[in-house]
This record gives sequence, structure tokens and C-alpha cells, in this order.
Amino acid sequence: MKPIPFFISVARIFAIGALLAVGARAHAQTDPLPSWNDGPSKQAIVEFVQATTTQGNPKFVPPEARIATFDQDGTLWVSHPMYSQVMYCLERVPAVVKEKPELKNVEPFKTVLSGNREAMAKLPMKDLEKILAATLTGMSVETFNAEVKKWFETAKDPRWKRPYTELTYLPMQEVLKYLRTNGYKTYIVTGGGQDFVRVYSEQTYGIPPEQVVGTAGGTKYGYDKSGKPFLTKEPRLLLNDNNAGKPEGIHLMIGRRPYAAFGNSTGDRQMLEYTKAGDGARLAMLVLHDDAKREYAYGPAQGLPETKVGAFPQALYDLAKNQGWAVISMKNDWKRIFAFEQ
Amino acid sequence: MKPIPFFISVARIFAIGALLAVGARAHAQTDPLPSWNDGPSKQAIVEFVQATTTQGNPKFVPPEARIATFDQDGTLWVSHPMYSQVMYCLERVPAVVKEKPELKNVEPFKTVLSGNREAMAKLPMKDLEKILAATLTGMSVETFNAEVKKWFETAKDPRWKRPYTELTYLPMQEVLKYLRTNGYKTYIVTGGGQDFVRVYSEQTYGIPPEQVVGTAGGTKYGYDKSGKPFLTKEPRLLLNDNNAGKPEGIHLMIGRRPYAAFGNSTGDRQMLEYTKAGDGARLAMLVLHDDAKREYAYGPAQGLPETKVGAFPQALYDLAKNQGWAVISMKNDWKRIFAFEQ
Repeated sequence: MKPIPFFISVARIFAIGALLAVGARAHAQTDPLPSWNDGPSKQAIVEFVQATTTQGNPKFVPPEARIATFDQDGTLWVSHPMYSQVMYCLERVPAVVKEKPELKNVEPFKTVLSGNREAMAKLPMKDLEKILAATLTGMSVETFNAEVKKWFETAKDPRWKRPYTELTYLPMQEVLKYLRTNGYKTYIVTGGGQDFVRVYSEQTYGIPPEQVVGTAGGTKYGYDKSGKPFLTKEPRLLLNDNNAGKPEGIHLMIGRRPYAAFGNSTGDRQMLEYTKAGDGARLAMLVLHDDAKREYAYGPAQGLPETKVGAFPQALYDLAKNQGWAVISMKNDWKRIFAFEQ
Repeated sequence: MKPIPFFISVARIFAIGALLAVGARAHAQTDPLPSWNDGPSKQAIVEFVQATTTQGNPKFVPPEARIATFDQDGTLWVSHPMYSQVMYCLERVPAVVKEKPELKNVEPFKTVLSGNREAMAKLPMKDLEKILAATLTGMSVETFNAEVKKWFETAKDPRWKRPYTELTYLPMQEVLKYLRTNGYKTYIVTGGGQDFVRVYSEQTYGIPPEQVVGTAGGTKYGYDKSGKPFLTKEPRLLLNDNNAGKPEGIHLMIGRRPYAAFGNSTGDRQMLEYTKAGDGARLAMLVLHDDAKREYAYGPAQGLPETKVGAFPQALYDLAKNQGWAVISMKNDWKRIFAFEQ
């Protein structure tokens, strides 16, 4: 009867093994995208990740090449009716004028100080650029970072009465984490200011500053009175990270073509084209703002002018269908939009 | 006597624990820098890594902030008497002239085609720039990458008769690995071409393309006849990654101040200053080429003009001593210089 204990122990090991296997399978089946409704969008993401990360799959992508890029405004967080960075610049104007009182009666600063939102909305691009230059350049990198950080601590979105950094889309946060868990390096590729977004990207999205590509100006190296070196932000544009500037920025800052790219407007078209033009499996997706109740509706046929930044005109919708880019319907694909929702 | 087995098992657990502890200590004591001689340089590196990665140490640096930057030419590999990228550009001239025969009798192409090294060495900077523009721009990013890759497969250093990528310094490869093992992200910050270095950085140094910061030109997004998008390299300078351009490039591409920086010439001065100006523990080191026998000697008092790129004049040596930057003597600090040496 000596062999019996041996068989028993083997049986026990098998039983434990089976239990572990069940546990592993249960773990693998945990939904990585719980805020997404089942449907073609969710399926496209899951199929892409499974195909590109499964050894032996013809679409397998080696870990070092796994790059995914995300537009920010309207793709990762709310950008309607006004980008938070524009809000920042407008709200910084009083402080700028306090330091330079000679600007008080000079346009466009005068209009911004008046608080007349209707007049502010009508300011031409040239005037907006003056405001951006005055509020985003001329100071040291450290001073700028501290000012932006401080602003985010108190600034609130007027509709939800919450800090802007709480207005990120939970389903997209899940995509970021799902991709990272599967070895993808996630990047923000934004038309917004690179330095601006870098201040909160790590805390807000788990994306470190070095993985933020954005519209970037030059800096100038110099020394303070004590001889300590510092960098001053200059009004010299190095990269306009919109439209064709997105693939150009990706090449400059990353040097590899992404395997997945997410956007929501015409400014993302070239990034998606460039991503899709690579070999093997490539995922290109556009977030369609069609949920007037839970967020906003400004997609095709919402009557927005085609030239408006952040717009999603019918032509883009048609292009997406033609190019095989998936269109994410906020209304139908997202079970939950914000983490603070019940 | 019942308690005895209990004490015995406790004693056994302690004994096993002690063995494990010894094992761990033996592992910790494995020399991470075996090609370095004991001395102040090696000690500075080890002390920096231990201080910044030990929880509870006042100099502890959180993993996400661990950034280390390395100049390439003369710091990570041989760059004397000629940078390999300059060799690449000169050796590409015949192919460029074959495509554009009208350049055959035009300077500086005529001189380069003549093969007269003495005349080539005398070409003014303006002419060199023409050669760089003709060989580094005008083609698609993919074509350029393929050409550089192909060149490195056959090009050899004239002294060692080996591919340039074998002429990396083993002690510096050990530093790169040692830092990475301890959670540091290692970056190349080179005056050389960003796109050029990115072609071989991963294979040669374990540094992915997105962690190479270098002198960078713009690209232009466009479409080929079939409608496929591609990027063309343009002769439009975005970043001259030398001198003050190094901290400016670090801010643009990384957005964080490094905790450690390594260089070998006046072109690295500002990067080291900027690194050292940060709070807490910061390591700044310069490689001094003082080994005429095993490599080259062109450090202080080697008679090189102060303005020569890659030079290490006496003034830099004095500055290093004054600023607390460690100077690495190739002759005294490095037991072995190349991996191919016995």
C-alpha cells in the first residue's frame, strides 16, 4: 500500500493545479474595460491588444515597439465649450497686468479684464496669440510649472463644478491602463501646450512628462544673479502639434510610428493616417461627442463650423468609415463617462 | 520535551534566514562595475546610486524621477579623430552625386569626391553644413534609417578595423546597465543627429529611440502617389543639441532635470551645470581622454585648440574641479576600455 500516499499527493497537486488554473482563467477573464458597453468599439480594442501581445500571432508586436498615442482635449477629457488651457491663460491675465500695468488699457488685455465673455469669444486668433504669449512665456520653467499646478488646485469646470483633472473619461483611463498592462508605452500627443500638460499628466493619467508631446516653444538657457542656471520659456514656436504637426511631433519626440492612436477631431486626422499606414495590426479610433445629456454633442451634423478646432465634421466621419478607423460613440459605447458618477 | 521540536524548527528558520541573508549580501556585493578600477570615480557612481535608491536615505529619489543623461561622442564611444556621423556623411557623397550629377564639379562635393583627406579636413564649417544637408535631409525617414543601418553593417574604424558600434566603452556600458538596474531611465543627449543615433541606440546601448535627444531637424508630412503618408527630413534646424542646447533639448524632450549627467567636452558644460543645479544628490562626470596608448589623449594640455568640438580644455578641467564634477581618467579609472579586449 506504499504507493497510495504518492498517488494521493499527486492527485492533490493536480487538484491544486486545476484550482490555480481556474483562478488564472478567472483573472484573465476580468473585464479590463468595465465602463464600456459590449459592441464593436470595445471589441476592436480587445482584439487589437490580444493580437499584438500574443506570442506566435502573426500580428505580434515586440514589447519595445508597443507605442500608443492619445490626443488629450476631447479624447481623454472634456474640452467643451472651452479648453482648460485657454481658461488658464484668460484667468492669468490679471496677474500679468499686475506685473505689467502698461497692458491694462491695451487690447486684447483690456477686453479680457472687462470680463465680457461675449467680447472675449470674438477675439481674433492674433489677439488670442498675444494672450498665450503673455501668459505662457517669459518666465522660468519652474515658475510656470508652479503657476499651473496652483491654478489646477482651485480652478473648476463651470458645468460640473469640479477640478478639470476630474473630468477625464473613465473609459479612456481604462484603455490607457489596459494598454500599459499589456506592455504599451502610452503617450499624450496634444495640440495643447507640452509644458502645460506635463504638469498634471503623471497624476491625472499615469503618463510621465517625457511621454507628453505637445505644442512646444523654445527655452533659453541662462544664469540668475547667483550664477544658478535656469531655463526661460520663449515665444518661439518649435512644434505646432496639430494636424500634420502630430506625426511630425511623434517623429521628433518618439521616433517610432505608433501601433494605436486615439483622437476626436480633424486635428488628429494625420496622426491616425500615419498610424494606420504602418505594417501589421494598427488601431485608429475617434471619440464622437454624441451624448448631449451626459457630456456634449458636437459631432457630425451638430452644426459646428468645419474650421472650428476640436470639431468632428461629417467629412471626418466619412473618412473614418472609408479608412477603417473605429468611431467611438460616447452615447452608445460608454456605460459610464466619469469616475465620480455612480 | 514537547517544546524542543518547536525551538528546533525556529532555529532552522533562523538558520535558513541567515543563509538567505548571506546570499542576498553576496548578490549585493557582486561588482556592478567590473571594468572600473577602485578609486574616487567608481566610488562616486556607486555612492550616488546607493544614496538615491535607498528608501529612507535623505537623498532618495522616487523611481519616476530617476533620469540620467549621457553625451555620446567621446563619452560612450570613440569619436576621435573623426565622428562616425561625419564619416557617414562624407562616404554618402558619391551616392548623392550619382543621383544629382550636377553636384560633381561643385564645391564642397568636388573636394570630397577627390578623396584628398587633407583638403577635406580644411573645408570650412559652411561647406561641411552643405554636405550634412545633402546627406541627412531630403529623403523619407524610412529611407534615411535604412541607409544608416546599411552603412553601419560595413563601415569600420580605421584604427581598430571594427564596426563603430563595437567601439563603445565597456565601463560606460556598465554604468548604463547599473543605473537601469536601479530604476534609472538612461538617455543619450548628443550633439550628433537625433535620427542618426536612434538607428543603432537600442542595439548598441539598450537605449530606445525615444530616449535619444540629439540635434534635430524638422520633417514634413506628405503623401506618396498611392496616397500613403510619409515624413520627409527637412534642412530646418529645430534643436542644436550642443552647449546651452543640451539643457534646452532635455527640457523639450524629457521635461525633467536629470539626476546624473555624463560628458567629455565643453559642449557638455551646460548639461552638467543644469544637472548639478537641482536639489539633492546630483552626479556630474566628465570622461578625460588621457590614454594615448589604449585610446587617445586629447585632454587638458594635449595642445588641441580650445574651440575644437569635442575638446577638453584646461578651463573645463578647472571648472570641473571648482564645481565638484568628477573627472574620469580613462588611463587610471578604466581597467578595460573595450569589450573586445582580453
